[in-house]
Amino acid sequence: MGYEPNAKTAEMAVQLNAFMQEHIYPREMEYNHYMDDDANAFTYPSWFEDLKQKARDAGIWNWFLPAEYTPWSPGLTNLEFAPLMEIMCKVPWSQQVFNCSAPDRGNMDVLAKYGTPEQQEQWLLPLLDGKIRSTYGMTEPLVASSDATNLEVSIVRDGDEYVINGRKWFSSNIANPLNKFMFVMGKTDPTASRHAQHSTIIVPKGTPGCRIVRTYRVLGSLHSPGGEGEVEFKDCRVPATNLILGEGRGFEIAQGRLGPGRFQYAMMFVGMAQRCLDLMCARVQQREAFGEKLMKKTSIQHDVARSRCEIEQCRLLVLAAADKMDREGAKGARDLISMVKIVAPQMCETVASRAMQAFGGKGVSEDLPIGEIFLHARFCRIADGPDEVHMSQLGKWTIRDAPETDLIVHNVDN
Amino acid sequence: MGYEPNAKTAEMAVQLNAFMQEHIYPREMEYNHYMDDDANAFTYPSWFEDLKQKARDAGIWNWFLPAEYTPWSPGLTNLEFAPLMEIMCKVPWSQQVFNCSAPDRGNMDVLAKYGTPEQQEQWLLPLLDGKIRSTYGMTEPLVASSDATNLEVSIVRDGDEYVINGRKWFSSNIANPLNKFMFVMGKTDPTASRHAQHSTIIVPKGTPGCRIVRTYRVLGSLHSPGGEGEVEFKDCRVPATNLILGEGRGFEIAQGRLGPGRFQYAMMFVGMAQRCLDLMCARVQQREAFGEKLMKKTSIQHDVARSRCEIEQCRLLVLAAADKMDREGAKGARDLISMVKIVAPQMCETVASRAMQAFGGKGVSEDLPIGEIFLHARFCRIADGPDEVHMSQLGKWTIRDAPETDLIVHNVDN
Amino acid sequence: MGYEPNAKTAEMAVQLNAFMQEHIYPREMEYNHYMDDDANAFTYPSWFEDLKQKARDAGIWNWFLPAEYTPWSPGLTNLEFAPLMEIMCKVPWSQQVFNCSAPDRGNMDVLAKYGTPEQQEQWLLPLLDGKIRSTYGMTEPLVASSDATNLEVSIVRDGDEYVINGRKWFSSNIANPLNKFMFVMGKTDPTASRHAQHSTIIVPKGTPGCRIVRTYRVLGSLHSPGGEGEVEFKDCRVPATNLILGEGRGFEIAQGRLGPGRFQYAMMFVGMAQRCLDLMCARVQQREAFGEKLMKKTSIQHDVARSRCEIEQCRLLVLAAADKMDREGAKGARDLISMVKIVAPQMCETVASRAMQAFGGKGVSEDLPIGEIFLHARFCRIADGPDEVHMSQLGKWTIRDAPETDLIVHNVDN
Amino acid sequence: MGYEPNAKTAEMAVQLNAFMQEHIYPREMEYNHYMDDDANAFTYPSWFEDLKQKARDAGIWNWFLPAEYTPWSPGLTNLEFAPLMEIMCKVPWSQQVFNCSAPDRGNMDVLAKYGTPEQQEQWLLPLLDGKIRSTYGMTEPLVASSDATNLEVSIVRDGDEYVINGRKWFSSNIANPLNKFMFVMGKTDPTASRHAQHSTIIVPKGTPGCRIVRTYRVLGSLHSPGGEGEVEFKDCRVPATNLILGEGRGFEIAQGRLGPGRFQYAMMFVGMAQRCLDLMCARVQQREAFGEKLMKKTSIQHDVARSRCEIEQCRLLVLAAADKMDREGAKGARDLISMVKIVAPQMCETVASRAMQAFGGKGVSEDLPIGEIFLHARFCRIADGPDEVHMSQLGKWTIRDAPETDLIVHNVDN
Repeated sequence: MGYEPNAKTAEMAVQLNAFMQEHIYPREMEYNHYMDDDANAFTYPSWFEDLKQKARDAGIWNWFLPAEYTPWSPGLTNLEFAPLMEIMCKVPWSQQVFNCSAPDRGNMDVLAKYGTPEQQEQWLLPLLDGKIRSTYGMTEPLVASSDATNLEVSIVRDGDEYVINGRKWFSSNIANPLNKFMFVMGKTDPTASRHAQHSTIIVPKGTPGCRIVRTYRVLGSLHSPGGEGEVEFKDCRVPATNLILGEGRGFEIAQGRLGPGRFQYAMMFVGMAQRCLDLMCARVQQREAFGEKLMKKTSIQHDVARSRCEIEQCRLLVLAAADKMDREGAKGARDLISMVKIVAPQMCETVASRAMQAFGGKGVSEDLPIGEIFLHARFCRIADGPDEVHMSQLGKWTIRDAPETDLIVHNVDN
Repeated sequence: MGYEPNAKTAEMAVQLNAFMQEHIYPREMEYNHYMDDDANAFTYPSWFEDLKQKARDAGIWNWFLPAEYTPWSPGLTNLEFAPLMEIMCKVPWSQQVFNCSAPDRGNMDVLAKYGTPEQQEQWLLPLLDGKIRSTYGMTEPLVASSDATNLEVSIVRDGDEYVINGRKWFSSNIANPLNKFMFVMGKTDPTASRHAQHSTIIVPKGTPGCRIVRTYRVLGSLHSPGGEGEVEFKDCRVPATNLILGEGRGFEIAQGRLGPGRFQYAMMFVGMAQRCLDLMCARVQQREAFGEKLMKKTSIQHDVARSRCEIEQCRLLVLAAADKMDREGAKGARDLISMVKIVAPQMCETVASRAMQAFGGKGVSEDLPIGEIFLHARFCRIADGPDEVHMSQLGKWTIRDAPETDLIVHNVDN
Repeated sequence: MGYEPNAKTAEMAVQLNAFMQEHIYPREMEYNHYMDDDANAFTYPSWFEDLKQKARDAGIWNWFLPAEYTPWSPGLTNLEFAPLMEIMCKVPWSQQVFNCSAPDRGNMDVLAKYGTPEQQEQWLLPLLDGKIRSTYGMTEPLVASSDATNLEVSIVRDGDEYVINGRKWFSSNIANPLNKFMFVMGKTDPTASRHAQHSTIIVPKGTPGCRIVRTYRVLGSLHSPGGEGEVEFKDCRVPATNLILGEGRGFEIAQGRLGPGRFQYAMMFVGMAQRCLDLMCARVQQREAFGEKLMKKTSIQHDVARSRCEIEQCRLLVLAAADKMDREGAKGARDLISMVKIVAPQMCETVASRAMQAFGGKGVSEDLPIGEIFLHARFCRIADGPDEVHMSQLGKWTIRDAPETDLIVHNVDN
Repeated sequence: MGYEPNAKTAEMAVQLNAFMQEHIYPREMEYNHYMDDDANAFTYPSWFEDLKQKARDAGIWNWFLPAEYTPWSPGLTNLEFAPLMEIMCKVPWSQQVFNCSAPDRGNMDVLAKYGTPEQQEQWLLPLLDGKIRSTYGMTEPLVASSDATNLEVSIVRDGDEYVINGRKWFSSNIANPLNKFMFVMGKTDPTASRHAQHSTIIVPKGTPGCRIVRTYRVLGSLHSPGGEGEVEFKDCRVPATNLILGEGRGFEIAQGRLGPGRFQYAMMFVGMAQRCLDLMCARVQQREAFGEKLMKKTSIQHDVARSRCEIEQCRLLVLAAADKMDREGAKGARDLISMVKIVAPQMCETVASRAMQAFGGKGVSEDLPIGEIFLHARFCRIADGPDEVHMSQLGKWTIRDAPETDLIVHNVDN
């Protein structure tokens, strides 16, 4: 019993930590300052591809891909991958080095699970090679997209093609210099039942009629090198073979994409939060104010303790979700997956916020990753649906599944 | 991997749940109303001993006692017992039926671990039989007892006896009609080093010089049938053989007592919180206000979801603590044990509080256990040391153990 | 400008504080211990009437009654009374000494505002004299009473009488030895429009067909000497002249009752919270733990600072509500009145909770008023409607009254 | 009584609101998008100076400057200015249009209060004219600057000059194209008593030995056009006449600067928070998800209600602080000024955060001011000292000033 890493994972963790120590942490501030300079918007530092190659040579590559997707997967269960994901997320950008970053992680899942051999050949293999990047276009500016039945982009069959019209935004990674295609979820049949109207299709970069209207800042940040884009589709035509799985299967695909994605994404916040706490602990050992080390102040001790408790609980929840996915699949783990989506970003926002207070100005400066982590966590309380939407869903499931009781009947006659 | 119950525990859970359904839940309101009538202060309903006998006959008895204490233990690991503890705590008073209630649980641990054969014969066996109850006297009214080095009750050797002077309060269970003795922690050697001054000794009920000054309400409640007492020792003499383990070992005993006690106590709040949530879910399915069922309101859904997430996380934390205790002992599990002490009562207070809001008046009335659970959780944020003391301790450990980093050095020279 | 007390109020505050110092604080613990002994349930200490007489002799009497109700009112505006209310609430029970306690305060308002001369003669005058006490029966066990249109008790005209059937609970003060009558709000015309179905009628104590089914504990406390009662009406007949204002006016009366009641009730929590903070500050100056006074710990300093900020803000909000009531009446002050109902009990619960943590065991014992204050505040987050109902109402008003803006239109075409 | 604006202020509010409607709101998005484009870093839109001239022509100019500073002040008391400040802060950048923006506001206070006629001539008049901007250099990267006694920059007299060495950062507004000078607080006499070691001196832009090492992002944002800078002083020489007030008066100046600054700064957050709430209310009236308008969801209603309550309470607190400053000066208003510093940024962060959740993606995009407001509020929980420092200070004052009580003595002898 228990969620201690097994021998295989423990060994991989040692290897990964060594790689982080040797190759990632030493370049952390350099990468951050590079990205903070808008002259470098939507580009990578020159040494970045080399770093990816090093990781690939070391075999730290595509670890995220679930064991079921042989031959591409390195064969880890979700529970085995989870603690490794935590380690690689201690530096926000290092997932890319290991080809484990969003949204490609989920997009590779989709192609591995639902793609035709031709689609896999054309799009999955280069993704697995880290040669290209991609986007998943879901959110639309004109409707509440967290209720995905609202999505209005139209995808209409016309001969051997589909014609796309409408507008997406928060199309993450669209400005990445390696980006080569975008999944678009839109409506193929407005007359079908509510969850059968939507389909998902591949739109290659540069397809006529598909225009990036703008990239824009999110909470003041460019999200470079990926970016957030607003994309307009105007009679944009793609081959019918670009459709994934079939018409009306959009919701099924979106769901299938989410399973491993959600716990990985949650584990990212565990790693980031743990990093903030580690930095905070190092700081309060050194810094003095008002006659004593910050670590002597009970308010600092309490903030550290609260953070520790929240991180540890969230970590266990994510591990439990990964474990249940391994045993019962995404459907069986549905409630736990919903929980980690709700809990992890808030937890990370809170922990990062406490660390910022302990650091003062340095904590919000570009010299440390804490501010970026805070912003990312805050943003992700909205991304993939606001917390509130997930809480409503989880609340409904929980109420429905609750045991019956007679106790609440009012029956008093003294 | 994972914390799913193993086959043995799963089977015991089925048996326990059946017992709860048949014998406990049907008497829940009757017991509560009995205790709410102060005419019954510090007594049990007439049928209570019979219920205990039923549990004992069914073999649901002393399950809490760790496997190391053969032959008395039923042989469960901490991790095996934990989910069973949750079930028996869904009704606040039912732990007594299964001889698994505080403070006797911890006191039996102490006697099993540190007692001489004579002490075990005289005090442990009747406790294991459920024939007697006991008290652990720690807190004193005149000093901040959460810093136990402050404890001032004096225990002075005089020939074959020890002479006790001073005052304790929050001596829980002192008014229980079955109470037969009290552990007293006090100072035997004020000149020793800070953690070697204190010892623990058994004071039998009725020993001259030991007087219950009063029992009193805690947050308005009598805590019947156990009660909270203020106890005065005035030249109170007990045989020297009543000393546990030896002079100066008081802290060691207190620590040893806490290991399993802390996670069991935390699991109690998981069970109680889950019960509150279950009742809340049942209520909101039925109750209507302002034109719709309460379950349709997003604020209710969110409260349910938050509670679910908090309970599940706390449950996992307690299981992790129990598991680590099994593998590494109380010392190895020290941080996790500290965490569950901090997290569990606050979590339960919060969950119970939300349930109260959903019920309105009924939630705080004596017709439901929610109010009592709320009060118990609130009280336990102080009992065994206020949250703040535990957060300071955990914070210090966490800061000390944090990894080093170069990142926080300020070194900018553009 | 500002909310500083004017000369008249400042002078009355001096007098009131002196009375508190001389007559109330010295008896505080005695009263509390009296009430904590259930042998004294629903009785007063022998000296209590004498104390009321002293207050009356000193002219500290009925100060709450708004100036409009001459000749009975002492002539204070709401804003003038508010800071005096705060002072008299520093001891939870002392409002009774000054004839300023709920629910009589509101009931006197109702009778002064809506009563016939006969009703005033029979019920208002003895209330103003402090000779009798009363109850306002609103909540029913079988419906969500926070949505008062749900109330089901029936009040049917039959000749010169009304016949009442149904059940109320949380009928506060029903067990008070001085209680002489109860207002009952019930349905006279189920066919009328939603807010015109209900009426309010006086039911004298002892009327046949009106039975106190039980008094019961609320969060473990008896609320003695007032009590909370469940009351059954079975063909209970009262003279038609007992009706207040006319059939279908129940909502109007309930609203009218609430105006001054709400801000007074909120100010009560300001006074109680301030008392908890004062006690906490005194404690942390003296108590030592882990090598220093508690006041030296930053976590304690922060808790004190947070409490101070919350109390001060709430106090200002209540004063603003009182001021607006004076200038624009209850209707004009509607939003502010709603705000103080939401804010004050939560604030007081939080402040009391922090004080309890600073005190440890003593804070929840019956030796200090903090525990009682905590419980009262917690209960009042449900009483007169759960927080959630008031937040929904205020939220709706606020949304409706918000200024328009073009900014939220999505209109991007780069 | 009360804090309603008087006739003069009410009239000015009408005028100011009209100006906002005509000239500011219509350019809000244009300004924001201009600043979000890093190609425009540290520049203003071409029309900006014209807008300032319009405001000046309309007489909406320097309203912030307290009445005591005739002839420069327009003569408003703090309490009169406060509600006007709220209005002009509904758009984060519009304070600059009215020459009421930080840090110049405080710097003008300093020069008006402490400057020599020559200093006023050279620096104050152009500031009052809006022709130049300025910086207040306090925070240093190498010490915990919230404890200002730590500040290490040295200012050494050498003949008719002072020589400055050391490093500042978080020097706000340093990159503003209009910036012409910087106040530097540093140590003139390390041997003096703790609060007499520091002095404040003017360093004109371009003084040799003063180098802007870098400007940097704060929580990902450039804070353009003002910027945050790290500044190195290396044998930087300025005339001795640039010293403000005299050697060792640094703390006195810093304190004097804070009085009106703190309440104005707090009122800024009231205005910003109110704007977020207004936008949120507009949104939830229109947006639909899961079958109904967002405004119908109780969770949205509650979030609106909570925000309303928090804003209103904070507003009243700021008005009370302004009022007390008018009546008793900064010293008399010390506690209230400390409270508004603690409360306002947190309140604004919370309110903006709720608005972001209600908007989803749009709320964090650059199309609305909500994200910027959120970031600004979050940053200001650190700027001018982290919340924790102010809470410790306020906590100490509150504990020291608390009334004595006998109640906490333990004295029980039943």
